[in-house]
Amino acid sequence: MAGNTFGTLFKLSSFGESHGPALGGVIDGCPAGLKIDLDFVQSELNRRKPGQSHITTQRKEGDVVEFLSGIFEGVTTGMPIGFVIKNEDQKSKDYSHIKDSFRPSHADFTYEEKYGLRDYRGGGRSSARETACRIVAGAIAKLILKEKNITVNAFVSQVGKIKLDRSFEELDLSKTDNNVVRCPDEKVAEQMITYIEEIKKQGDTIGGVIQCVIKNTPIGLGEPVFDKLHAVLGHAMLSINAVKGFEIGSGFDSIHYKGSELNDEFTSSDKKISTKTNNSGGIQGGISNGMPIYFNVAFKPVATIMQKQNSVNKLGEEVIVEGKGRHDPCVLPRAVPIVESMAALVLVDFLLLARCSRI
Amino acid sequence: MAGNTFGTLFKLSSFGESHGPALGGVIDGCPAGLKIDLDFVQSELNRRKPGQSHITTQRKEGDVVEFLSGIFEGVTTGMPIGFVIKNEDQKSKDYSHIKDSFRPSHADFTYEEKYGLRDYRGGGRSSARETACRIVAGAIAKLILKEKNITVNAFVSQVGKIKLDRSFEELDLSKTDNNVVRCPDEKVAEQMITYIEEIKKQGDTIGGVIQCVIKNTPIGLGEPVFDKLHAVLGHAMLSINAVKGFEIGSGFDSIHYKGSELNDEFTSSDKKISTKTNNSGGIQGGISNGMPIYFNVAFKPVATIMQKQNSVNKLGEEVIVEGKGRHDPCVLPRAVPIVESMAALVLVDFLLLARCSRI
Amino acid sequence: MAGNTFGTLFKLSSFGESHGPALGGVIDGCPAGLKIDLDFVQSELNRRKPGQSHITTQRKEGDVVEFLSGIFEGVTTGMPIGFVIKNEDQKSKDYSHIKDSFRPSHADFTYEEKYGLRDYRGGGRSSARETACRIVAGAIAKLILKEKNITVNAFVSQVGKIKLDRSFEELDLSKTDNNVVRCPDEKVAEQMITYIEEIKKQGDTIGGVIQCVIKNTPIGLGEPVFDKLHAVLGHAMLSINAVKGFEIGSGFDSIHYKGSELNDEFTSSDKKISTKTNNSGGIQGGISNGMPIYFNVAFKPVATIMQKQNSVNKLGEEVIVEGKGRHDPCVLPRAVPIVESMAALVLVDFLLLARCSRI
Amino acid sequence: MAGNTFGTLFKLSSFGESHGPALGGVIDGCPAGLKIDLDFVQSELNRRKPGQSHITTQRKEGDVVEFLSGIFEGVTTGMPIGFVIKNEDQKSKDYSHIKDSFRPSHADFTYEEKYGLRDYRGGGRSSARETACRIVAGAIAKLILKEKNITVNAFVSQVGKIKLDRSFEELDLSKTDNNVVRCPDEKVAEQMITYIEEIKKQGDTIGGVIQCVIKNTPIGLGEPVFDKLHAVLGHAMLSINAVKGFEIGSGFDSIHYKGSELNDEFTSSDKKISTKTNNSGGIQGGISNGMPIYFNVAFKPVATIMQKQNSVNKLGEEVIVEGKGRHDPCVLPRAVPIVESMAALVLVDFLLLARCSRI
Repeated sequence: MAGNTFGTLFKLSSFGESHGPALGGVIDGCPAGLKIDLDFVQSELNRRKPGQSHITTQRKEGDVVEFLSGIFEGVTTGMPIGFVIKNEDQKSKDYSHIKDSFRPSHADFTYEEKYGLRDYRGGGRSSARETACRIVAGAIAKLILKEKNITVNAFVSQVGKIKLDRSFEELDLSKTDNNVVRCPDEKVAEQMITYIEEIKKQGDTIGGVIQCVIKNTPIGLGEPVFDKLHAVLGHAMLSINAVKGFEIGSGFDSIHYKGSELNDEFTSSDKKISTKTNNSGGIQGGISNGMPIYFNVAFKPVATIMQKQNSVNKLGEEVIVEGKGRHDPCVLPRAVPIVESMAALVLVDFLLLARCSRI
Repeated sequence: MAGNTFGTLFKLSSFGESHGPALGGVIDGCPAGLKIDLDFVQSELNRRKPGQSHITTQRKEGDVVEFLSGIFEGVTTGMPIGFVIKNEDQKSKDYSHIKDSFRPSHADFTYEEKYGLRDYRGGGRSSARETACRIVAGAIAKLILKEKNITVNAFVSQVGKIKLDRSFEELDLSKTDNNVVRCPDEKVAEQMITYIEEIKKQGDTIGGVIQCVIKNTPIGLGEPVFDKLHAVLGHAMLSINAVKGFEIGSGFDSIHYKGSELNDEFTSSDKKISTKTNNSGGIQGGISNGMPIYFNVAFKPVATIMQKQNSVNKLGEEVIVEGKGRHDPCVLPRAVPIVESMAALVLVDFLLLARCSRI
Repeated sequence: MAGNTFGTLFKLSSFGESHGPALGGVIDGCPAGLKIDLDFVQSELNRRKPGQSHITTQRKEGDVVEFLSGIFEGVTTGMPIGFVIKNEDQKSKDYSHIKDSFRPSHADFTYEEKYGLRDYRGGGRSSARETACRIVAGAIAKLILKEKNITVNAFVSQVGKIKLDRSFEELDLSKTDNNVVRCPDEKVAEQMITYIEEIKKQGDTIGGVIQCVIKNTPIGLGEPVFDKLHAVLGHAMLSINAVKGFEIGSGFDSIHYKGSELNDEFTSSDKKISTKTNNSGGIQGGISNGMPIYFNVAFKPVATIMQKQNSVNKLGEEVIVEGKGRHDPCVLPRAVPIVESMAALVLVDFLLLARCSRI
Repeated sequence: MAGNTFGTLFKLSSFGESHGPALGGVIDGCPAGLKIDLDFVQSELNRRKPGQSHITTQRKEGDVVEFLSGIFEGVTTGMPIGFVIKNEDQKSKDYSHIKDSFRPSHADFTYEEKYGLRDYRGGGRSSARETACRIVAGAIAKLILKEKNITVNAFVSQVGKIKLDRSFEELDLSKTDNNVVRCPDEKVAEQMITYIEEIKKQGDTIGGVIQCVIKNTPIGLGEPVFDKLHAVLGHAMLSINAVKGFEIGSGFDSIHYKGSELNDEFTSSDKKISTKTNNSGGIQGGISNGMPIYFNVAFKPVATIMQKQNSVNKLGEEVIVEGKGRHDPCVLPRAVPIVESMAALVLVDFLLLARCSRI
């Protein structure tokens, strides 16, 4: 736990700052024999890429991944997969406005205090740009899941107060990417887009909720006690920039029901055991039960706003800071593939671990 | 991540089933030179112990911890601290009602499927009885935190719809243990107790929310990217039985505010930098900023109810299951020390890791 | 790496001091469904037990293992296996002679300096008594290996200058336990025993070499680069008390041959590929190749001798120390099962890891 | 332990094949505030570089390291240090001679069997070219050690039967790099060079021994039981290509002495406690005692020889293989910085861990 590696058997060790020469990482533990669809990996990166629509940041970054090892003639060899994503949009900007000042609700102050110095250019390592590496590893993980027919689909279910009030069973999740906000309900998507446009005009930002649904999970993923499947999913999601909350299945709403109302009774059909309801969110005792896994992830509004804010500098003197450049009024559309990627990393790790549960 | 170890430098490896001879564990990485107050450790165990009040289970378990190593003349030696808690209440009960049947929303089905067999007596390893070991390690961790003047206080803030509507700043957290439900507001506590009594009469169960507040944390705890302080706290909390959700600081409520409303502006006084508001919950960029850390943990109602429920057995045949014995109508009062213990384990681990952040 | 856990998927976390109430540990990651032959586990412990013959220490320790979890109706459940071995021979001895003095070539000085204090009774955690826990976990590992038909046989191949000059292929390893020194060649064994008796009379100690041979290993155990099979075997062996050297296959003797002489040419028979010679010791590129694995482990003479030695105390003052009690003139006979146990732990861990090498 | 990461707090995760686009890695856990002397890092790489003398391989590889993150204005930030070393000498060679055949004593066969496929170009990941990444991380580690005044010096002490018969105390280790074989005794160096020239003419290869000496180590490095300092050093050394043996201090020679002859008596001078002799090799009970640490590493002759050898192909058919290209007749001169690098990685990891040994 030095902070930059995720996973036990299928592991991503990532590196890179927002404005250094490149981001990159090492994916270790990927089994040999997996065909790598490079176009798929790049298409996943494109879903996170800045500048993809008028409601995201207008920064132009190519986000092209270059694999350096571990793939031979299009197939994984079992060796570590090294990769880099070069930072293209590295203009020698003027960072004097944040070099010595601490932007509210950013990592400037805590990094400075913890390490005694920081790479202040664009937030350095604390920038969400780091998540591009998670997409690369997540895309490889998704290719493994595809072989098992497991699907991972995230979508924006709430932006500010605009909420998608239908359950995932009622939605066609293949429509998520049909609109720029990544909400599978076209009408609600339009409302969200309009709202984000307003927020953007105000130079402000807004948060929301992403729901993620995993289907066709085999029974038995997750480990008892400390590494319950939803505990590790929670860890994964809470590690994403701007995330403030996580809930599995009935989540916080479980509070409002009695055990007799919330328990998922078992039933069987054709010798296959399932539950009548799914308040458990596909996980019981920390282990997947074969029902769809679903969870919600709460994102706060991005800290960088195009308005003046009071703050202090290193000397503790009062200063005014104001966002510059091109930032997202709402990160949720671009965070959808990040949520999916982290979920995929968790699932693949547990799939491998599950190979060792019986003699 | 084989599931039974928690922590990187300060680690708990636990073992034990509900109805085996004993629970226990190994606490590794505890620095040498810590005075162990055995009475304090036992008093923490007593806070979790069954039978402590009329609104908890009436099972009688002594829960006496016995230390076997790592402590010499009352002081830790840097060696692993082994301990056991014997299971006293091991009557040779009749478990035929659950041996082959799957209790709704329990781990019976998933354990059976994952491992091919299970210790069905009282839920075996999936029983919340396992958390007694977390209390022991958490108590040791709290002794370390005490030396740094760091306090960890959890309390019940909601039971069903009965909610404590004051922020922790307005509460006297030293009053938490003054009542059996562990809510520091005496009036709300009474309402909660009355409500739990009703639920108990119905043979039903109810969930709620525990809030945890950590004060005097040094700046700099937490690691960038994957092991953000709140991500590991979330992992820790979600690993507790019956937990369905976790939120840090403004949490899910962050959705309802704009960046300009939610950002925590910095201010300084006597050269000490702090934030005017604390929606960040004491953590920015995954690293503690010196402000109070607070988070909420959502518990579902306990799955075991004293009512008949439909289910199936191993063969997929329909059966009726009904809770027997003495169970908690609401686990929250007994979960308060568990939440504190897991938080303490996380904090101590990061305190040790933080010793290595600078050259 | 806090020092008291060994393994990645199949893990032993051990605890316990020489003269505390008990030793013990947690074996985590043992797959479910393994039948545990308790008599076999105890028989392995008996092979390490003090007092087993006139050439080992005459201390009487029962070394009875008590399992506390993870085994249900004689079969492993996939849950952690907790166990304790009570220390019976805990007379309240007089330790004043070592309390403040540092015994030559013992851990007294380094523990005191590292931790600021130490449990000086019988060496505390640094005592080889700790290895009893390795035997318990190793015995469980051997039961897994048995199911795969893999055998692990160590034996004493050298004591002082008395050396067994035949290769393991020429020996009947089933005879190892036929004599008290655990050398499968009866004649050499007699010489060794006579020599150890002489050394014992002198109040002195002597070291030697244990060779370990592993047969029927599947091809593919070991991981590239840092966790080569022989690197982890070396780590395991060098962690045993009094071990000073490790060599795999042709080992240090490789120096005396040219590549053209030492290389193992491949051959095939009935489509099965093997090597004509086995200087590689069954491992190529860090991965098992199906040939017998063999390695040597060098043990120094035990540091505790029944003679007066010069030393210093905590204050740096000159003192005379002299061994008291009942100690081994030569640890090798009792170390044979320890070597086998550590090898078994390594093999099982890699067997589990190897389940994840291909998609 | 997926094989491509080394270390607990100071960690190297490496990637890259011999003939892929690049090697590289992530160094995580490097404390913030360390000045990086890029020239020093490159000079270390140059010590391992092919083509550096007439007794090493004549391949020309630039081995230029490019840092991508974690260093800001010449100083480490505490963030992961990503780096790449591009493979320049990647002519599209003809590999048909090894594509389907297994070179004796190489990893071809075991990789093919373990993974079902392999990157056969130049040995792929199993090539010693991978060690360039260890040099980069080792150079950073050495910069940390320099701040503590700790020195790590390896040298060639034996090539075939030509042996340096003086102890390291009698040698001037600053002279090691004065000759191409890296032996600090000029006369013995000349003999070694002449011998390697002969071996080269024969198209053969030869092994030897590297000794490594670490001075000014603080007391207290190493962890009890499984992660003794010499056990982890052994692990590190045995992970280097072609290494067959490791011994600490008096090593295998300990066999020839009695306890009374080998024990290191303590003495003190000016309140500083040390030992009169140093058979312990600077480590007692697995923990450094402040005396010089020294150990030997045995290397077998390189498996690639310029002679015809019998082998088989994938189908088990007999084939003749013969080394092509430019290979080392003796790897020891180039392995000296690799041994030092791995030792430095181990030491820095334990230095950081030691910060947590006391409260």
